[in-house]
Amino acid sequence: MEAPDEPGAAVTTATSPRDLAHPARDEIRLEGVLHALSDPMRLRVVRELAATGAEVSCSSIELPVTKSTTTHHFRVLREAGVIRQTYRGTAKMNGLRRDALDALFPGLLDTVLSAAEGQAARLNAP
Amino acid sequence: MEAPDEPGAAVTTATSPRDLAHPARDEIRLEGVLHALSDPMRLRVVRELAATGAEVSCSSIELPVTKSTTTHHFRVLREAGVIRQTYRGTAKMNGLRRDALDALFPGLLDTVLSAAEGQAARLNAP
Repeated sequence: MEAPDEPGAAVTTATSPRDLAHPARDEIRLEGVLHALSDPMRLRVVRELAATGAEVSCSSIELPVTKSTTTHHFRVLREAGVIRQTYRGTAKMNGLRRDALDALFPGLLDTVLSAAEGQAARLNAP
Repeated sequence: MEAPDEPGAAVTTATSPRDLAHPARDEIRLEGVLHALSDPMRLRVVRELAATGAEVSCSSIELPVTKSTTTHHFRVLREAGVIRQTYRGTAKMNGLRRDALDALFPGLLDTVLSAAEGQAARLNAP
């Protein structure tokens, strides 16, 4: 789960090469979140993070795309405010920013997750 | 409001130059819907259609973009299955495919509309 981020907290700018830039809660925009969720691979990442309910490393989520494309997808999710990425030693860990998303857009994340589950069941896809 | 479209109805292919192509209900994908909703102008169109609750002509929704960009946005919404576009005489009329969206992705449209309202209020934007 994410570290608490208060509205207006200045967490936008990376302060060291190992701190990744994240939008503060009040900088997160609906359009950016919807865009981040509009890709099948990114939606899969979000479903896995939601199912796990904990931080996971990038490498523990297997996507049928190249490593650099995977990195790109995680970056889009981070920059939109959907996930928080933090280094733990050499691993980059990822967690859903559920508190921020639920506060800004009540019900949105759960509705999208349910819709994704329903669609996967209809299409007989993972 | 949209004409009823039954699951599996073969309405994908345009049958005359004045019939516009729409995905059948079971061809509508969550990712495409989220992408269609991820643009501020398209989100504004959807909010206006939802508020009106009726078919409206393209020209009655004023967007601060060129006519060709407006046409593009309506096409993205139609091809994603979010709106139905039909000719009435010389006017192209637009209606939300609420029945289809609510059946496929329960609660999604209303949650996005609420999130957009909330964000507009926070940002003091239209």
